[in-house]
This record gives sequence, structure tokens and C-alpha cells, in this order.
Amino acid sequence: MTLTVGFLGYRFMGRAHANALARLPMFFPDAPDTERDVLVGRNESEVADAVDRLGFERYTTDWEAAIAEVDVFYNLGPNDLHAEPSIAALNEGVHVFCEKPLAHTLSAAEEMAVAADESEAVAGVAFNYRFVPALRYARRLIADGELGDIHHVRAHYLQDWLVDPEAPWSWRNSADVAGSGSLGDLGAHSIDLAQYLLGEEITRVSGHLRTFVDERPVPGTGGEAGEQPETRAVTVDDAYSAQATFESGAMGLFEASRFANGRKNANTIEVNGSAGSLRFDLERFNELELLRNDNRGFETVLVTDQDDPYLDRWWPPGHVLGWEQAFIHESYEFLTAIRDGDTHRPNFADGRSVQRVLDAIERSDDRAEWVDV
Amino acid sequence: MTLTVGFLGYRFMGRAHANALARLPMFFPDAPDTERDVLVGRNESEVADAVDRLGFERYTTDWEAAIAEVDVFYNLGPNDLHAEPSIAALNEGVHVFCEKPLAHTLSAAEEMAVAADESEAVAGVAFNYRFVPALRYARRLIADGELGDIHHVRAHYLQDWLVDPEAPWSWRNSADVAGSGSLGDLGAHSIDLAQYLLGEEITRVSGHLRTFVDERPVPGTGGEAGEQPETRAVTVDDAYSAQATFESGAMGLFEASRFANGRKNANTIEVNGSAGSLRFDLERFNELELLRNDNRGFETVLVTDQDDPYLDRWWPPGHVLGWEQAFIHESYEFLTAIRDGDTHRPNFADGRSVQRVLDAIERSDDRAEWVDV
Amino acid sequence: MTLTVGFLGYRFMGRAHANALARLPMFFPDAPDTERDVLVGRNESEVADAVDRLGFERYTTDWEAAIAEVDVFYNLGPNDLHAEPSIAALNEGVHVFCEKPLAHTLSAAEEMAVAADESEAVAGVAFNYRFVPALRYARRLIADGELGDIHHVRAHYLQDWLVDPEAPWSWRNSADVAGSGSLGDLGAHSIDLAQYLLGEEITRVSGHLRTFVDERPVPGTGGEAGEQPETRAVTVDDAYSAQATFESGAMGLFEASRFANGRKNANTIEVNGSAGSLRFDLERFNELELLRNDNRGFETVLVTDQDDPYLDRWWPPGHVLGWEQAFIHESYEFLTAIRDGDTHRPNFADGRSVQRVLDAIERSDDRAEWVDV
Amino acid sequence: MTLTVGFLGYRFMGRAHANALARLPMFFPDAPDTERDVLVGRNESEVADAVDRLGFERYTTDWEAAIAEVDVFYNLGPNDLHAEPSIAALNEGVHVFCEKPLAHTLSAAEEMAVAADESEAVAGVAFNYRFVPALRYARRLIADGELGDIHHVRAHYLQDWLVDPEAPWSWRNSADVAGSGSLGDLGAHSIDLAQYLLGEEITRVSGHLRTFVDERPVPGTGGEAGEQPETRAVTVDDAYSAQATFESGAMGLFEASRFANGRKNANTIEVNGSAGSLRFDLERFNELELLRNDNRGFETVLVTDQDDPYLDRWWPPGHVLGWEQAFIHESYEFLTAIRDGDTHRPNFADGRSVQRVLDAIERSDDRAEWVDV
Repeated sequence: MTLTVGFLGYRFMGRAHANALARLPMFFPDAPDTERDVLVGRNESEVADAVDRLGFERYTTDWEAAIAEVDVFYNLGPNDLHAEPSIAALNEGVHVFCEKPLAHTLSAAEEMAVAADESEAVAGVAFNYRFVPALRYARRLIADGELGDIHHVRAHYLQDWLVDPEAPWSWRNSADVAGSGSLGDLGAHSIDLAQYLLGEEITRVSGHLRTFVDERPVPGTGGEAGEQPETRAVTVDDAYSAQATFESGAMGLFEASRFANGRKNANTIEVNGSAGSLRFDLERFNELELLRNDNRGFETVLVTDQDDPYLDRWWPPGHVLGWEQAFIHESYEFLTAIRDGDTHRPNFADGRSVQRVLDAIERSDDRAEWVDV
Repeated sequence: MTLTVGFLGYRFMGRAHANALARLPMFFPDAPDTERDVLVGRNESEVADAVDRLGFERYTTDWEAAIAEVDVFYNLGPNDLHAEPSIAALNEGVHVFCEKPLAHTLSAAEEMAVAADESEAVAGVAFNYRFVPALRYARRLIADGELGDIHHVRAHYLQDWLVDPEAPWSWRNSADVAGSGSLGDLGAHSIDLAQYLLGEEITRVSGHLRTFVDERPVPGTGGEAGEQPETRAVTVDDAYSAQATFESGAMGLFEASRFANGRKNANTIEVNGSAGSLRFDLERFNELELLRNDNRGFETVLVTDQDDPYLDRWWPPGHVLGWEQAFIHESYEFLTAIRDGDTHRPNFADGRSVQRVLDAIERSDDRAEWVDV
Repeated sequence: MTLTVGFLGYRFMGRAHANALARLPMFFPDAPDTERDVLVGRNESEVADAVDRLGFERYTTDWEAAIAEVDVFYNLGPNDLHAEPSIAALNEGVHVFCEKPLAHTLSAAEEMAVAADESEAVAGVAFNYRFVPALRYARRLIADGELGDIHHVRAHYLQDWLVDPEAPWSWRNSADVAGSGSLGDLGAHSIDLAQYLLGEEITRVSGHLRTFVDERPVPGTGGEAGEQPETRAVTVDDAYSAQATFESGAMGLFEASRFANGRKNANTIEVNGSAGSLRFDLERFNELELLRNDNRGFETVLVTDQDDPYLDRWWPPGHVLGWEQAFIHESYEFLTAIRDGDTHRPNFADGRSVQRVLDAIERSDDRAEWVDV
Repeated sequence: MTLTVGFLGYRFMGRAHANALARLPMFFPDAPDTERDVLVGRNESEVADAVDRLGFERYTTDWEAAIAEVDVFYNLGPNDLHAEPSIAALNEGVHVFCEKPLAHTLSAAEEMAVAADESEAVAGVAFNYRFVPALRYARRLIADGELGDIHHVRAHYLQDWLVDPEAPWSWRNSADVAGSGSLGDLGAHSIDLAQYLLGEEITRVSGHLRTFVDERPVPGTGGEAGEQPETRAVTVDDAYSAQATFESGAMGLFEASRFANGRKNANTIEVNGSAGSLRFDLERFNELELLRNDNRGFETVLVTDQDDPYLDRWWPPGHVLGWEQAFIHESYEFLTAIRDGDTHRPNFADGRSVQRVLDAIERSDDRAEWVDV
């Protein structure tokens, strides 16, 4: 079986997923074969330019036409383009893999999840960090009870790329397109990861959003003669924080920022349980800090042994993996589920679950009070 | 000038401060001389036993008598014993040094601050971490603008000594005596430290308190014949979290727990500004992680150079200090202020400021909404 | 131009380099095109099995035939198979990329370097760690004088895969095949890296070799009925250390071991100069610890910015790379040099330089005295 | 029993040991009482000045007179002043505590050890790092076999205080006074620590010494009018390295430098055994990194629990100790041994053992060959 694949999106995410598909045959030969068939984009010259580089056969600017012709549709566009094409594809029985957050609004996410429920097709959402070996190993430890009852989760996702007030405006600064800022872009990862690791949902939150810089220069405006660039309003949060309660009563603490000077991609999470604890920082992709077995301190575990998740596919112990590997593992699981008719997680219901928390955080911030998810 | 000193309290804090006074002459010969005169406690045999060990002349069980006879009164008792003796001492012109949190209730703290205002005597509160060289250095960097405008503070104070549900009940688990649990014991440090480092106050908070274990065994009960120990109710929080806003608009995130398995005394704080960042963990007392000067990453600075705060009094570079040193620096500053008639910080107004935040966090938790401090 | 490529070797290194060639088109589209033409191995069924997986057209057990038919020959076989095929290829004008150490004996390495000198073809040796972005950045800093005059280099390469005395015998334990043990396998990396970073050669060494376990079980022998497995003699070193002097007078300290319990792939190097220092550990592939510019401590630099070496080809800042990336960068440089007629480094002369140091360490160990390289 | 004590030396070491004696009563009330009686120094005004500050009764410039009048003599002078006064004291039955290295020459050290053997008095040598809780805990683990058979020890002692060529000349740069440079000052610690942790001796070494800066300015010379300061020759090593073999066959690697830019007091040691490993860095005084019990990685253990060595005397878990504590523990053991008539370790035989290794390293460096200790 060869699955034909269409991508909507050809920039960062397009490249990351095209690379994933390209690498499966050598390292996951048991994955279904795929053909990168059609690449979809709105800017014809740019998408035409990307076709070869990303290994596609052809391109189009018409996503509806693309959906009609592929087995699998990767929706890698801006958040406001997630719902309509994904629903259309699912309605036609095309398998959909959608970038996170699932949608730019909760109502769109709810519709997407309904469409997924009603479709025979597989609908996956791109919470790629579930496929980091260290975190998959962490999930296994928690599920096996090695940490006991969980009391605390604290998850920060810290970056610094907007700390300069002159950093250029992009669609990620627009509420209309992105839905939210650090909350949806980074916080969605933290929330999914926390729910995944604990195997349970957040029920109640108190949220706080903040925009530090209200407008930013539009790229391509302003000039050599010293003209001021045009600016455009930043209508999303630069940073958010949230307090949360999980079903079991565990306490959650969440935060993300694009203003955390010195932090490049610090997606960190710590879990404390009655029998142990663990910590992870995406900047140290291959490491898990682990307290267990009545040890006295956190062990720094290099999660690169042959029996660690996915590691038998790669290199000998100590030969570290990089960020992109999570994408390869993710597509491996997604495509295998399609072939085998298996359930795939995280699916659109997981995406909706996260979106409900995002929405609750925004509602909480509006009302200045705790809200139920 | 020799200042005669009385201590109320002879356990952990009594020992820490007695040690501080004992060590001043060799390392801070410019500090006023002190005489450890009278030690106050309720349990006569225990206090009698401690007199020699802590280097006092005599003991009493009558704090009022003690106050009448000393120049300086260190109030190191349980939180519910802070207000009355401290106010009595200040009213008599006796200088007071009081352990943190300032009081077990906000109203008591307010009265104490008023008494301090109305007294000629110096009134200090024991936020000892202000006297850690790395943090004093941090304060100087922020005050000098080296971190630019501050966007974020995140402060966690994580311990694990109550994670075992059979850990014994103590006065720290009683709302009547302690006022609150992790909030007042640990959170008070975080909040003072954040306000100290930023040089500004928290104006608004959203708080969350949680008790994981509702009752604990009373020490000395239960028996060899397998009798169950008596239990007593835990009426304070085991953990708290809070979101906060500072005067300048900086976002704060706070948390403390006695259930953070594997963390012994992790009083951590991170500050992110427009021009730099810093991080500290009390478990690595001598280190400051520092981003500045367009560096690419955090420098790990061993704050033990001769021109670091207080370091010219101690050892050559690289010969690390320990937790107790903060107490020595603290008493040095407090006693020097008494002799010189100078202002001492942190004073009872600083203690009250923290108490207002603690109280606001509790009110917020009750109401499930943001509250003004 | 499409370069046809033959590989001798299809296991770990075969896979690592096949992956490198497969990935160049998407990330280094300016590299010459390659066709993985022929795969060479001695075990016909195994090599046949690998052809598809590694993306080759065909296989052979006859390396001489293969050399006659390709533009570029990757010699990835055991050390005792490096010299003859590489020299044969160079004599026919076929470009050769040879795994490290260059040969199993110094005389073989000398012959290889002569053959490379006399050939028009490009001859590269696989000191892949020169192509790790953090280390390439380190080299640039040292070459630019940012560390001043270099006083010290200390390089340890620590692994633990032989600490179990029952770990199976392999060709890496045979002096006839491998030449040496930890010295040639791991030490060769350290020595090349030190010479590369400093831009100068080691002139004098004192070495020490040690075998902790004298014989090991042969895989496939011994049985379910409890028969003892056959054992074979370990004729190489399990660990080595060396003191060294560089041309400039800098002191070097080297060590490798396969018995360093808990260390998976700790290829670490530290350089101390009059104006700064740096440290690297391969287990934290993306990080460089750096002292410079009158900073007080080591900065932890995540070497993933767009202007870091090769990083513009990959992902945004903070999206970390893995071990395999060094191989991709390495083949990119090697193949580009072939196309452009440029010099490629490290070349066979660099390989010989390292081999002379390895040989000097062994001679020194034999004689128990310092020897000149 | 009150032991009267005399000190020769009143600078860094004088202060460190005076502090130790001053602090024993509060924290080690079971230690013998001491009276700091007489302080000995050559510079009368300086020693007079130090008497009060260090808590002594009186001073003298005549060490022979001092010895005649005390129970215990702390010899804290420059290395060339260790032998004669220590031997004189031992001959008179005065207990001697001598700073390290034991002497400035091997022959002096041999004489001192003989004198100690022939005396009833206790003779201790100041390898203070044996009294760091983390290292004492480490010794216990190794002695209990938790690390199995030891294969490797690597010990670096790195400082940076001479990296500036204009750093002033001191007696530590003089072979006549100090014996050697980094070797005796820092290397002596590493060698003793390695022998202590392993419980066995070094039998054979290959050493390497190096002086990077041949002369240094004499403090107090040179002038405001731009006159060049006088310089004096540096006749000792700025750095050394050594390879070593232990009785058991374990491999040792040693190094020290005063030119390791960025390292303040990095006395680091790593031990790898068949069943586990450990690592320590003096800059993180309270931490031990520990691999054991089939764990996957090194645990970071904060050695501050109540059942850790000496910790029941200090503060609750997580309240870290500093460098000075090792001196307090050291004098506690030394004085207790005196009172109880017990053996004290490290003694002069331990000091001689280290001195033999130091001497062998120097001989090896001279001859450019391995030598037996």
C-alpha cells in the first residue's frame, strides 16, 4: 500500500513533516509507503518553488482539489485555516493530520472533533512532543505507577524571540489568524503534555494573559531613507500563566512566554508524585531527570538505550537524537494507524480537550476568576 | 557599645541566630559587640538545657521580664507568638528582630508595623535570603538596570518533607499557630525575594491553596503494641500557587510545596528582563546564573569573589559559603543599623507588605477570583 | 553533475553515511547530487539485505570491481580494510572517504597518505566531530583569538559498554583487525579534535594502555544446556591515557575508556586559554560552555542560532540537532570539495597525523617513557 | 580536659582553623575544650594584630617557646617551616596538626613521619577534603563495595588565579619555600583524596610539570611614576599532570593548574567502578553525583540529610554547608583522637605517602619516564 499525501503549508512545518516522511523508509521500513503527491499554498510562486525541495510531485493553490486526490492530508497552515479544509477532508474520508493548536477558536475545534467522530478516517493532531523518546518513557513510568500519586505538574514553555520590541509582526501576532499568542502556540503543547503524562484532564483553571508590546513593525515597510516602518497591532498575548486542577486533584502550574530572555526553546515540565518525580527540558532533548526507587536525588538519564521508545530504530546508546526525530515518530504512528485501522492518539478529541483548556484560560483571564473547563 | 540580647526561641532558628551572633566578632569585627543575655522559652527544662549550648547567660519562661532587661529582642517563636512580644518590646524602645512571616494574621502584622512606626527602635524581619551574596549581587544588577525592564518573575520554593502521609504533625500544620502552611513558611520568602529583587510591590494576585493530607499522627502517640497513633487535623495548606502582577506590570508566578518529591530546599527564582535574565536555586547557594551584555547563554557565576557582597569578610574565591552565612550577614546589618541609627531593611513594613500578599492569596483562593493586595 | 558512490560497509557506519547522503538534497540542495550505486560487503546475504534499506542500486562482494565503477568510494569497513581498497581507489582517481582511525597500523596510514598525495582525487577521513556545530563554532572562536594563548587541553572520551566482563567479543577487541582498542576508536577522535581546535600538532606524548578483561565470550557460542561459551582473547586496550605537549607548549591530557560506568558517549573536551575557556560534551551535542569577554563564569550557549555553523540549513533557534547531523555536514563538505576542486579537511594527512600520535602513545606505553611523535 | 593550643600562622589557614576551634563548642559539644593560647608569627606587628581577631590569648615570634607551652600545635606556616617545628613538637610529646603538603621535600616528610612514629603524640595532616560530608559519604560507599572493583580515578584541581602574567609573585612561586607549585598545593589534595577514596596507594606514575610564566612582579615594587616593578623568578610548576597506577591495577589520571581560566576552585574527582561511579566538584560542595543500584544515570545527591556524615550536627536537610565546615569536622576528629587516645587519619604516614607520589611525579618529569613511587 502506498498512501498519497497532500500538504497544506510548505514553510517550517511543511519542511519538518516532509523530512519526516522522507526519512521513514530507511529507519521505519515497516511504516506504510507514502508518496508526497501535492503541495498546497496560496502564494503560487512560493509553493512552486518548494515542490522539488520538499519532494512533492506537484502543487496547487486549490486545497479542495488537493483533498479530492489524496489519501492523507497534512494541514500545516495557519491556525485559522485548520478547520475548513480538515473538516472537508474528513467528510470525504481523507485521513487528516493537523498542526496544533487544533483551531483558532473553540467552536472551530469542536466542529473539527465532531467531523472526526463522524468520519471513518483517522484524524491526528500534531502534539509532537508526545513522540520525544524521553517523554514517552516518562509517560510509561507514570502509567506504571513508578511515581505514585501525582501531586504537582509545573510546565513552562519559555522563548525569547519577541523580547526585542522591534522584532517584526507576523501572523502569529494576530488574534484573527492565530486565535491566541503564546497560549495557543506554546501553552497548547504544555497542556497536552501534562494531560498526556498524567493520563487525565484539567478540570478548572485560573488564567492570566499579557501583551508587553502592542504593535510591531511590518516587514518590508520602512525604508533606507530612514522612513519609519508601518506597524501593526499585536492582538494576542506575549505571555500567559495559569493555575489548574486535574481530575485527580493534582495541582498544575503553567506558563509560556516569548519574552523569556535567554531561553530559546525551553519547553520544561516537572511532575512530582508520592513515589517519585521527573523533569524534562526540550533544550536537552535526550535527557530525563528522574527520581524513583528511593533514590536520594534526580538521576540524569540519557534516554538513548536500545529499549527506549523508538531507539532501536536509530543509533547505539549515547548517540543523541534531535528535535526532528519527534516528527518522524509521530508520522510513523499516524500512518501505521491508518494502515492498520488502529486508533491514533493524539486525535482531534485530544486537540479539542486542549482547546477547551485554552478557551477556559482566556475566559478566566477575562472574568478574573476561576472557571471550569 | 555592647548590646544585650534576648532570644525567644531556642530550636532551629534559635540556634541559627545564636551562631550568627557568635561568629560576628571574628569576621565582622566592625559590628557592635553583643552579649547573649537571656533565652526565653515555655518549656523550662528545654530552655535551661539550651542556655549553655547557645552561649546565653541565663534563661526565663517570662518574655515580658526578658524584654525589660535587654537592648535587642530576637523573636524566633512560632508565628502566633510574633505580635504580642514584638509590640511590647517596640513600645519599650527595645529593638526587635522577628522571624518570618511577620505574623500569623494580617491584622497582627498590621499592628506590628504600626508599633514599629511609632517606636524609635529598629524593627527587622527575618527575610534572610536578602543576605545571600548571590541574591544581593542579583539585586544590585537589577537596580543598576543591567536586566532592563522586567517582564517576568517566577519563584518556586519546593521541599519534600511532608510527602510521606505518616510524617508527624507539628505546629506548622496548625492554622491557629502558623497562620498558613507552605504559603507563610515558604511563600513568604519567595514574595519578599521577588519584591526585593524588583524593587517594587505586587498589586494583584490570584491564589490557589491545597492540602493533600488532612490529618497526621501526633508524635509520641501510638505504641509498640501496634496501637494506632492519635492523629491531628492539618488545617493549613501543603502547597500553594499564585499568579501576580507587579506595579510595573511585570508578571509573577509563585508556588511552594512540601510535597515536591526530590526537592530538599529548592528556593528558586528566575527574573527575565528586556536586557537580561537571572536564575538562582538555594540548593546551589553560591551560584547565580546570569544572562547579560548580549551574551548568548546564562553564565554560571560563582559569587565568591572578593568584591561580591560580604565576600571580603570570608575566604578566597571559590571557597564556598553555606546557608548559615545569610544569617550572619543579616544580623550584621541589623545590629549595625541599631548602632548607627540607620534604616534597616527588611523592616516591619516589608513584613507587612509580604503579609498583605499572603492574605490576598488566601482571599483569592476563598473567592476563586483575582483580588487586589 | 551526479556522483556515483560505492560504500564498503553496511552496518552502523554504512547506515550513518547512507542517511547523510539521503538527506543532503532537502537541506543542502547546493551539494552535488549523488547516486548510491553499489554496496560492498563480504557476507553476501547480509549485504544483499542492506541494499534496499540503505538506498543502493546493487551490491557486490568484490571491492575491486566496485571501485572501478564509481566516482566516490566510502570505506566504512573494519580498520584493517582501510588501506588496500583506499589506496587502490586513489590510484584510479576515485575519491575516497575513509572511516577513522585512518588505518590499523602507522605504516598503513603512511602509505595511504602518500597515495592521497599522489592522487588527483580527494581523500577525506571521518573525524566527524569537526562538523558538530558547537565544535566548529569553538574552532572559530579559538582561531579568532577569543581564548588567547592556549595553556591546556583535556579530552576524555568515556563509554561503558565493556564494563560487563560478559559483554561479547567483537572485532573491536582484536589488535589484528582494529589495531588498537579505545585508543584508536575513541582516542583518535579526541586527538584529532584537540589538534583541530588548537590548529596545531602534538609533538610529544607519554601514554598508558590497559586491558581490564583479557578474554570475552564469542557470540553464538555456549548453549541453552548450560555449556560455557567459547572465549576469545582481547588483544587491545580497554582504556588509555596520555599526557601530551603541543607545538606551542600547551599541555594536553587525554583519556578514553570503555569501562567508565554511567558514561554513554561522553566525548568531552575543555580548552583553557589566557583570555577564555570552553568545554564540550558530546552527550549535550548542541551546547558549548564558554568563558570569554571578561565574563565571570561559563556561559551555556545553545549553538542553534541561524548564524551558527550549518544552522541556517536546519530549524529555528532552540530546535536541537542530533548526532547524525555531523555526518550530513561532513559529506556536504567532502562532496562539495570534490565538485569544486577544493581542498578538503580532515584529509589523509590529518588522519596520518593522528595515527602518528596513536603510534607514539603505544610506543611510549611499551617503553614507559616519553616519546616524540 | 581543656587542650591549650598554639598556632604557627595567622593568615588564610590561621583564620580557617581558628574559626574551626571557635565553632566546635556550639555544634560539637562532645569535642574536647580548647583554649587558643599562643599565636606564632615572624612579623611581630602582624601577629600582634591577629591575636584578638583569631581569639588567642597572646603571641610570640619564637615557635620553640610556644611549643614548650601548649598541648597541641597547629603548624600552618609555609611548607619549608613544616618539618622543624613539627618534629620538635612531636619530640616533646606535643600533638601536631600540620598543613599540607606535609613538607617541601620528601626527605623532610620522611623525617616528620619517623618523628610521628616515635612520638606518643597525635600527628595529623590537613587533607581537609576527607572531611567534606559528600566525600566521606563517597568513601563509605566505595568501602562498602557499592561501586564494585574500581577501574578509573580522574582528579583535576583547576584554578585560575595565576592566568594573568602580572599576578604578583608570592612564596607559593618559590621552590625553596613551597617545594613545588600546583603539584604540592593542589595535586597533594587530589592524590590524598584518590588514595583515601580507593583505600589503596599509587604505586607508579608518569608526571609532567610546566611553568607558563617564568617571572612575576614583586608586590610593593614599581611605582606611580611608571617604574617597572621588580620581578622574581617563578621556580615552581604552574600546572602538572600525571598518569598513575594503583595497587589494585586501577588507572589514575591527575592534573592541577593555576591557569585554568574560569575555574575558581574546581577540585573534581570521578571514580568509575564495575558496579557504579561517582563524581564530585568542590565548587558544588554539598553535591555528590552517584551511579549505583543499576540506575541508568548519575543521581545528583544533596548530601545534607541527617544521617549523612556530620549533618546531624548542623541544619535540616537542604540547608547547605560551606567550605569551612570541612575544617571544623577535621579538628573535631583530630582533637577527639587526642582525648580518646585513638588513631587519627590522615596522619603523617598519610602525608608521607602523598609526598612520595609528589616526589615520584617530579622524578618522572625529570627523567621523562615512568617511575615507581
